[in-house]
Formats: sequence, C-alpha cells, structure tokens
Amino acid sequence: MNQADIAVVGLAVMGQNLILNMADHGITVVAYNRTTSKVDEFLQGPAKGKSIIGAYSVDQMLSLLKRPRRVMFMVKAGAVVDEMIHQIAPHMEAGDILIDGGNSHYADTARRQVELADRGLLYVGSGVSGGEEGARNGPSIMPGGAKEAWHHVAPIFQAIAAKTDAGEPCCDWVGDGGSGHFVKMVHNGIEYGDMQLIAEAWTLLRGVGNVDDQKMAQTFATWNQGELSSYLIEITAAILLRKEADGSLLVDHILDAAGQKGTGKWTGINALDAGVPLTLITEAVFARGLSALKSERVAASKVISAELVPVTVGDNFLGDVHDALLASKLISYAQGFMLMRAVAVERSWLLDYGKVALMWRGGCIIRSAFLSKIRDAFDRNPDISCLLVDPWFSALIAKLQPGWRRAVSAAVLAGVPVPAMSSALSFFDGYRSAQSGASLIQAQRDFFGAHTYERTDRPRGEFHHTDWIGSGAFAKSGSYSA
Amino acid sequence: MNQADIAVVGLAVMGQNLILNMADHGITVVAYNRTTSKVDEFLQGPAKGKSIIGAYSVDQMLSLLKRPRRVMFMVKAGAVVDEMIHQIAPHMEAGDILIDGGNSHYADTARRQVELADRGLLYVGSGVSGGEEGARNGPSIMPGGAKEAWHHVAPIFQAIAAKTDAGEPCCDWVGDGGSGHFVKMVHNGIEYGDMQLIAEAWTLLRGVGNVDDQKMAQTFATWNQGELSSYLIEITAAILLRKEADGSLLVDHILDAAGQKGTGKWTGINALDAGVPLTLITEAVFARGLSALKSERVAASKVISAELVPVTVGDNFLGDVHDALLASKLISYAQGFMLMRAVAVERSWLLDYGKVALMWRGGCIIRSAFLSKIRDAFDRNPDISCLLVDPWFSALIAKLQPGWRRAVSAAVLAGVPVPAMSSALSFFDGYRSAQSGASLIQAQRDFFGAHTYERTDRPRGEFHHTDWIGSGAFAKSGSYSA
Repeated sequence: MNQADIAVVGLAVMGQNLILNMADHGITVVAYNRTTSKVDEFLQGPAKGKSIIGAYSVDQMLSLLKRPRRVMFMVKAGAVVDEMIHQIAPHMEAGDILIDGGNSHYADTARRQVELADRGLLYVGSGVSGGEEGARNGPSIMPGGAKEAWHHVAPIFQAIAAKTDAGEPCCDWVGDGGSGHFVKMVHNGIEYGDMQLIAEAWTLLRGVGNVDDQKMAQTFATWNQGELSSYLIEITAAILLRKEADGSLLVDHILDAAGQKGTGKWTGINALDAGVPLTLITEAVFARGLSALKSERVAASKVISAELVPVTVGDNFLGDVHDALLASKLISYAQGFMLMRAVAVERSWLLDYGKVALMWRGGCIIRSAFLSKIRDAFDRNPDISCLLVDPWFSALIAKLQPGWRRAVSAAVLAGVPVPAMSSALSFFDGYRSAQSGASLIQAQRDFFGAHTYERTDRPRGEFHHTDWIGSGAFAKSGSYSA
Repeated sequence: MNQADIAVVGLAVMGQNLILNMADHGITVVAYNRTTSKVDEFLQGPAKGKSIIGAYSVDQMLSLLKRPRRVMFMVKAGAVVDEMIHQIAPHMEAGDILIDGGNSHYADTARRQVELADRGLLYVGSGVSGGEEGARNGPSIMPGGAKEAWHHVAPIFQAIAAKTDAGEPCCDWVGDGGSGHFVKMVHNGIEYGDMQLIAEAWTLLRGVGNVDDQKMAQTFATWNQGELSSYLIEITAAILLRKEADGSLLVDHILDAAGQKGTGKWTGINALDAGVPLTLITEAVFARGLSALKSERVAASKVISAELVPVTVGDNFLGDVHDALLASKLISYAQGFMLMRAVAVERSWLLDYGKVALMWRGGCIIRSAFLSKIRDAFDRNPDISCLLVDPWFSALIAKLQPGWRRAVSAAVLAGVPVPAMSSALSFFDGYRSAQSGASLIQAQRDFFGAHTYERTDRPRGEFHHTDWIGSGAFAKSGSYSA
C-alpha cells in the first residue's frame, strides 16, 4: 500500500490543482484535508480516474507513502501551518520531508526548519506562483530549506513546473532556511510594482495622451509584442477589451480600491529593515493604501483645487509612456535583486540570481521576456551589484531616459499621479550620482545631535565634529513664528 | 532625607542636561548611574552647587525620594531599559512612578506599562526631543502611559519643557500605553522628511538654478523669515555659511553618506503595517539608504550615462523651489497625522492632535512656525481626516501648486533626484483624485487570482468575479519571449 509518491494536505483550489498537475505527470498523490468531506468531493469530482488516493487521517495518509515520506502543505499561511506541523510531525520519522507550499513569511519558515531539524525531519519552504491556473498547468516553484530534501523533491517539482521555451523547468533549489519563501515574497513585491506601473501608464495615456478605449487595448497588445512582453501586459490588453452589455468598459465599473494580502507590505518592511532603497515596490504598496481611502479621496476631490501647468506632449507620447514603463520596470527589478543580495548576505544564503530569474521566466504572474535579459546579465557577471551597471541594461536605459523624463514631467505638470514611475526616476538619478545632497543632512545631524561626519578628503572611519554654533547660528530652543 | 523630587538614571549627556535643567527650575534631583564614577564626575563637575544629590545604589536612590517616588531613565533604548526595570522595580511600592525618557519603540513601552501595572507601578514612556541643547534649555516632552502618574509628573516636565511665544509648555499628556513614544517616533520620521526636503531643495538650486554659495545661504536665511521659518531651515543657512580655512564650504568636504538610528525606519514600517500611505518619510529613509551606497554610486556614475532633456527655468525658479519645499512639507505632516490617526484608532488612543502640534512647536528638531497652523487646523476641526482638506491648508497648497509642479518637472528633466518632493506631489494628485487607476489593478487581481472586485454601480460589500479568459485572453502558463 505504501507506494504513493507524495501527500498534499489542504484541498482548496491551489491544493487540488497542484494534485491534478502531479497526477498528469504520472505521480501518485495522497489527498488529505482536515474536513474529510472535502476529500470525498475531490475524489468523486476532478480527481476521479486519476492516480489520486484519498486519506481520512494523518496516520492513513502517512501509511500510504513511500519512504522518505513527502508531505506538502497547501494551507493558509500563519498559525494553521504550525498546527498542521504539530499534528503531523510527531508521526513522521527521521529523513521524512515536510514541504510548505503556501505564502508563509520566510522568518517563520526559517524557524520551522530549525525546529524540525532537531527531530531529524527535513523541512522545505517553497514559493509557488501562478495562481490557480499556474498550479494546474505549470507554476513557478521556489523551494528552499533542508538541502538534503532536494533530490527527493526535484523530480516531482520540476515535472509539474512551467517550462521555458528551451524546456528548462521554472523550478530550482533556492537555498537554505527561508530563502525559498523569501524569493517568493520578493516576486510578489515585484508583482505589486509591475501592476502599479501598468495602472500608471494607463492613467497617463488616458489623462494626458487622450488615448481612446480602442487604441488603448491595441497599445497594450502591441507592447506585448516587444520588450514589455509579459503576462501582466497581455491580460491588461484583454481587460481593456472587456465590455458590459451596454458597450461600456467593464473596468470603468470596477471600484478603484485595491486590496492586498500582505506579501507586498512584507517586502517593503523587509527593505526598510535591511536599509535597501526599494522605493518602487514600496510606493506601489502605499498606492494601494491610498486607493483604499476611496471616500476620503472623493471628498477631497471636491474641496482641493487642481492648479495645473499647461503641457503639450509630443507626437510620440505613447512611445514616451512605453519608455517610462519599461525603464521603471527595470528599476523595480534592479531594486528587488539588490534586496535579495542584501538579505542573502545577512542570512548567509548563497543565492544564484540567474536561477531566480529563470524560475520567474514561466508559470508565475510576473513571467516575461524581460527576465531572460536579467538571467543573461547574471550569466555575464554573477556578482553584479546592481542590474543598472550591466552593459545591456545601461544601454537600454540610456535609450529610454529621454522619453521616461518627458512622460514623468508631463504627469507632474498635468496632475496625474505616477508615484512608481517618478520614484523610479529619482532612484535612478540618485544611483548614478557620485555626489548627493546627503552631505547637508550629515551636517545637520552633526549640528543638532553631534552625530559626527566623515570627510571626503580624509579616510573613511575617521569621524569629525564641528562646533557649528560658533559659526554664528542662533540655535535657540524656543519656538518659531512667522 | 527623603525630600528629593525625582531621580534620573543614566548620566550620559542627555541625562546630565535634563538634570541641570530641572535644577534650574528649583527641582531637587537624585543623579544615579550604574557606573558610579560617573556620579562623582557629574557632582564635582556641572552639578556642583546645584540641588542635585548623588546616589550610588538603587536603594540609596529610592531612599532619597519623596513619595510617590519618581524615577526617570535616560538610558539606551532596548534591553538596557528592561534591565533597569528589573533592577529597580522590585524595590518600589504601589503608586511609585517609572519614566522612560529614551527613544524606546512604542510597542515595548506598551508592554512594559502592562507588566508594571500588574505590580501597581505607574509607567510612563516619554519622548524627549531637542538633542543635548534642548535637554539643557527646554526640550519638547511627549509623555504617555499610566494616566494616574500625570499630575505627579506634570509640574516637573512642564517646568523644564520649551515654551511657545505665548508661554505654553511644549509638553502635555499624550495618551495611554505607548502613545508618548509613538508620537515621538512620528516626530522623528517627520524630521527625516524635513531634512531630505531641504537637501533636495539645495541640490535643485545648485544643479538647475545655478545658485552660488553666497546666494544659497542667503536664500535659506530669507526662507527662515517666512512660512518655512523653522529650526532646520535656520541651521541650514548657518551650515551653508561655514567655510574651511581655504575658503571652501565645509559641507562640500562632508561625505554624503547619511546615517540613521532607526526611528525613521520604524515610522515607515509602522505605516506599511497600518496601510497608511506615508510616502514622503519612507522615501526620505530610503534616500539615506541610497546615500550610504557611496562606492556603488561612484562606480555607477562612471558607467551610466545621463540622457537629460533640456530645460529652461523661469526667473522665479527660487520661488518655485520654495513652493515645492513648503508644499511637500505640508504633505509630509498631513501623512504623519494620518498615520497617528490610524494607529490611534487601532490602539484605542484618544490623541489630541492640536496638542501634539503644540508639543512640537518648541524645543524639538522640527520646531517651526508652520506647526501653529496645524494646531489651528485641529482647533477648527479636531476630527479632520487629513490636513489637506482644511481650508487654510487647501488655499495655501493651491497657491503653491504651479511652482511645485514646475520645480519637480525641472528636476525630472535635468536629472536631479527629488524623491521626497516628487513622491509628495504624486500623493497629493492621488489624494485629490476621486478616480484612480486602481480599478485596473483590481481587474488584474480578479483575472489571475479570482480575488473578486466591487463595482461603482453596486453596493459596497458585494463582490463580483468575471471569467476573463472567456474575454479572449490567451493566458498561457508558459513563458514569454520577445
């Protein structure tokens, strides 16, 4: 009886679809769910006639599996994962493998791996991206944790994962501890950024470019044939074609208050903690927060007057917006990889960034042609500090710069909010500046708090303090009036 | 013997200066430090001849105090505070008061208050701002925690605090739990934003306005006479006058890698957690992170080419930059008060925002004329959702808008990074927009993840899902190439 390859715990849509995907690849799967009626429904429904076996208890589930036993959770992140571990792990043996395929926070995954290693169990935290459709037909899978588990998990995960045009699976070993879930978190953050950028391009084309609905959908469809070719651009073109019965666009009836599930927020928090300037994704997360203040915005729109500056855009405004979108996207990915590098150093993970780009090439929400260029950049130089200094990317961004600047300038003058595009441009201009305004900030900090500063004409690590008051400033501790 | 009013634990500069300030106001203070040689040095030094008594043990310190005994920590935030509590609290009696005057995280303060309340002790977490100079001559003090302690603490704190021109002390009771330290944290975040904005204005005047050194210092001095009148603008004017022996500006020799001590970062993290779009402060924190990547920036400046767009600025470019600085500052404070409101709701704090503005009027680093306008706005409407809809502020920002837009546009075209100013403008344009691009984001989320959406023509709380694939999209799970 103990001939099944893997058990999946949790029969919500993602779990069901992963199981069906596995079965399609000749894998025998045990399906288990705490509410066992779900098991029956699944077996009598989509699982019927496939290499899928139901289990109604933890013991039964484990008894059906080959050794080492592989059990994968597809349950809600958070306390539920700990509960499931608590229920199942005591029945497992040294060398058995537990896999969390949900959206867990990577710090939780790291903690769980250590706890289970104490009992001899191999714990794998794996990002799985692509939504329901990806789970069914080929997701991007990002596993990390106990490396000894990888050769037992690889045949299953690489079989069911999406493949690139060259046939490479969009799944590879990420690294130690919580690195698999960490990479998935950054993926989700980048997804927030990409979506915000597309929304800004759309708003800008409508508000300043006066592009009509027909032309708009066409524009995104055309962009999908070029360097922006990606899943999110493709579905945007489709969304912008979708009409209501009365001929109006469906998107114009959708409430503009965007929800979030937390991983974007985690990415921003992680960047602040690590001191990495991940501005674009963070602006995208904040933009969702602002969108959610719908009633406040409606009220504000009635009392705040827009004082705009006349702007005439050139004939190639569509091209300018395209360049702004692509350049900003480049910045977002560059920042995302900077974050990964910083946290990998902090956690002593040996991440292969080219592999990460490869894993995102197919299956997941941010899949795009662009990611193959990122992989190429890391092939050229695995230790590159930032994608912006890769020759291919720096040449591309040089080409895109004028249009990017014109598009953001037009938005700024015309009152169209482009937080992600403008933040990306400020980051770019900051990153390429040998000299910044932070020298004044250091002077201020030394002035009011004696924080000291370093000098450009003295060695690093030598700290100086100036008695600024002596310079004639009148730093009274009273209050200011004007 | 037990006639002293208060004990201060921790004789670093801030602690010493607070004690001297108290003694100046007729308060008898016990000075205690774990390393007792510090006590002797202080008593024989600056404390000599004043109403300051040394203590060499916890017992001695407590024995010198009136009841209820008031003990204030001026020690490093973090584990040291818990250690001090652990050493001192067991020797105290019900009704005694412990005060933490350091930069503790407000969640720690809330936890400590609850723990000490169990023993009948009154715990107060108090922000103290103004640096060493403020501590000595009049800081801004923001106490919160056990309300029963306030009437025992008020006479001391309000005596030593800075005063407004009208003689009001820049110290009042903030609220329950960790609210005092929370308000101080937001204060520090705003300080990060103000400093970044000044640095951007300086960079922009230099880079685009071609303002020379003499004119630059003059410009800030002039601005300090108007609506921007504030401590940070004042010290900026002084800094920009300070010369080296060879006649060059000192600031030009200061390394442009800005440090941070964590409270700015905490503010950004707190905003992400609360879902409040605190974009400006967060950009300011990220800008410090970017500044710290000095060697990366220098390397990037050599390989990334700047492709700028020619820009001619008007005669009143100085005025435009002034307007950009003031408008952006307004956005930053509006966002900061939005954050306070959101967290106050979450924590059930009854914050008086007018009082908060008053506490910041004097003594602290962000003291300014501007804060009296904020206080006025909350006097007009204590429940205002955002300062931007106050009539005075909306009229001001209407006036500032064209210059703000021109200044940011010029920066964008000329390649000068202005992350805080441009982020503020995007926020403003987003906040005053009844309709945003987030409807497209909601459509995308429903497309790939069946997240559902609400409709503008249907009641809120009614969730809709569309079978988008049926709309003709080809959402393949493979990879993209171009």
